[in-house]
Amino acid sequence: MASVAHFDLLKTDTSTAARRGRLRTRHGVVETPIFMPVGTQGTVKAVTPAHLREIGSQIILGNTYHLNLRPGSELVRDMGGLHRFMGWDGPILTDSGGFQVFSLAKLRRLKPDGIEFQSHIDGARHFLGPREVMRIQANLGSDIAMVIDECPPWPCDRDTCAAAADRSHRWAEQCRNIAADTGFLAAGHHVFAIVQGSTYDDLRRQAAEALSALDFPGYAVGGVSVGEPEPEMLKQVGATTPFLPAEKPRYTMGLGTPPQLLKMVALGVDMFDCVLPTRVARNGLVFTPDGPMNLRNERYRADPQPIVSGLDNYTCRNFSRAYLRHLVLAEEMLAGTLLTIHNLHFYLDLMRQAREHIEAGDYGPWHRTWIERYETGAKARSA
Amino acid sequence: MASVAHFDLLKTDTSTAARRGRLRTRHGVVETPIFMPVGTQGTVKAVTPAHLREIGSQIILGNTYHLNLRPGSELVRDMGGLHRFMGWDGPILTDSGGFQVFSLAKLRRLKPDGIEFQSHIDGARHFLGPREVMRIQANLGSDIAMVIDECPPWPCDRDTCAAAADRSHRWAEQCRNIAADTGFLAAGHHVFAIVQGSTYDDLRRQAAEALSALDFPGYAVGGVSVGEPEPEMLKQVGATTPFLPAEKPRYTMGLGTPPQLLKMVALGVDMFDCVLPTRVARNGLVFTPDGPMNLRNERYRADPQPIVSGLDNYTCRNFSRAYLRHLVLAEEMLAGTLLTIHNLHFYLDLMRQAREHIEAGDYGPWHRTWIERYETGAKARSA
Repeated sequence: MASVAHFDLLKTDTSTAARRGRLRTRHGVVETPIFMPVGTQGTVKAVTPAHLREIGSQIILGNTYHLNLRPGSELVRDMGGLHRFMGWDGPILTDSGGFQVFSLAKLRRLKPDGIEFQSHIDGARHFLGPREVMRIQANLGSDIAMVIDECPPWPCDRDTCAAAADRSHRWAEQCRNIAADTGFLAAGHHVFAIVQGSTYDDLRRQAAEALSALDFPGYAVGGVSVGEPEPEMLKQVGATTPFLPAEKPRYTMGLGTPPQLLKMVALGVDMFDCVLPTRVARNGLVFTPDGPMNLRNERYRADPQPIVSGLDNYTCRNFSRAYLRHLVLAEEMLAGTLLTIHNLHFYLDLMRQAREHIEAGDYGPWHRTWIERYETGAKARSA
Repeated sequence: MASVAHFDLLKTDTSTAARRGRLRTRHGVVETPIFMPVGTQGTVKAVTPAHLREIGSQIILGNTYHLNLRPGSELVRDMGGLHRFMGWDGPILTDSGGFQVFSLAKLRRLKPDGIEFQSHIDGARHFLGPREVMRIQANLGSDIAMVIDECPPWPCDRDTCAAAADRSHRWAEQCRNIAADTGFLAAGHHVFAIVQGSTYDDLRRQAAEALSALDFPGYAVGGVSVGEPEPEMLKQVGATTPFLPAEKPRYTMGLGTPPQLLKMVALGVDMFDCVLPTRVARNGLVFTPDGPMNLRNERYRADPQPIVSGLDNYTCRNFSRAYLRHLVLAEEMLAGTLLTIHNLHFYLDLMRQAREHIEAGDYGPWHRTWIERYETGAKARSA
């Protein structure tokens, strides 16, 4: 189905289902497992594209829902596409906007060919269906476009969930056909399908197998991280990945904490995105190998150490916890910038380590040790 | 009086009083005329020290009033001084906090040896006099410390103004003596005096001459930009500079627009600081050779041009007006960062041009032409 675009599965771990892969896109290669910083409105909040490069970002996200409302996908297209518009020349994955319609928009009405809703910005009426989301993502020039789907809430009764999965499958097929007919796929763009099914293992398996038959360039596990506890979330991912084609990349949407990422890598997931590292950075919370650290805490008032000693990013090379704490308490914008740089680098570097350990063949013990240290440290800090 | 620290007057213009100079500090050389970005709370708002370097910043400001209240000057000292604390290894000038006590603090009470006031942050009582401001600026490790003074309001009756000038002179002399006795001057730090006198030419002359007799390493024109119209402000600067020693640098505090800077250079001023370029950047206003440009304006919605074509800064090299307008309207933090980079670079580059034209001997006609284009463009844009 795809031409330029494809995925090489370089190695599969023996003691876990972790995979080392390489995804080719129109804007370059992505080494997996990978974390993708989220750039909702055409910017990863608080940092420049140069910062993103410096910390080793390989691919970032854009949001169809937001960019379509403001500034509008036609404007982005007329300005040369999202890459040129936002000054990022690496790969971009765009979600389809379906999830945001369910989580942000007002007065949703589900129709056979899409969803009618009101903008959360100005209340204007909009409609998103397979035709619309594929047109918008083509306007943006997305390297990896997502199909539109219906994301059921958690918990969800079986009938509602089955109906959502049916509708999602039909929309996915329509998106795929549009991408083929318009030459989007032939030009080397990817389109990823999204597997729903909530907590029902059989529905997830059914959706995964049916979508696999449509031979998409990649597959996402959707409907996770919608309020369910972590064991339930991991169970759902584990109930989905075995039924996806091994030779295609797998992506869990909107997840998660550093230990969750490592656990999902062990389940065979290749790609992640999450607003967690950027969002908490803007509130003074930073990640370390010994758990999260709240820089507002008095104990860092005169602490001359960097957030993480030896971590090679601009923030850790140049600034003390005492200074960063001062910026947070003084509500200086630079706090958001410096802590975002650190948190994103921490996530990207964690995935770099994961790739190395998959290659070295010791991912299983390594990731268990890493998680244990992180969780022990987190408990000690909150004590 | 000073040892390491000194000022070389390299050239004086013939058709104006503009000067080309070089100021040596403990943290390097400053080529004058120069604009100094303002870093009130230990950060130039919204930009990193690396950004400041990239755009050619030579020296930045810190604020004694703010840093003393939060995080406290002892903490900054214990963290290695302000340079190390904020990750800026170039020269730093700190004001004495006197101006902020008058403009920000609550319940001021003037005493013979200083000013008692309440913090604008938490209402706590504080006291700033010559002893305190010199100790704080020594804690910060300031390259150029300012004396504490009493800045009279505008307008101000003659008796009040004369009393303020008297008190300011006494405090300046005390600051100078403390700086000599503590070895602050011998270690190569500068201390600048501040000339007050409001709108009374004779009081300004008297203050300038009396302070000149104390042989400070530099002199500031204070009490300007406190609400008076521009002609009055320029008159006050022009009534002060002729009575300051030619071989010492001159600094007008808290000024101004790009044309005002060029006019003050023509009056023989060497150093400027102002929050204008950084503050308006965070509200979507940017500077161009054709006047200020409000990026919120609909006319820039689909404008693919950079703010200023050919201007070599990160913002103008990489982003369109359309994109920057989008960031402003979406209230993205990156808007503040990118527009601050541009505005500061615009100011710094304007001073670079001024230096070149003073050297070339055509500062007079050049600065008149520059101001005419700027003001003509500003009128056209607001029409």
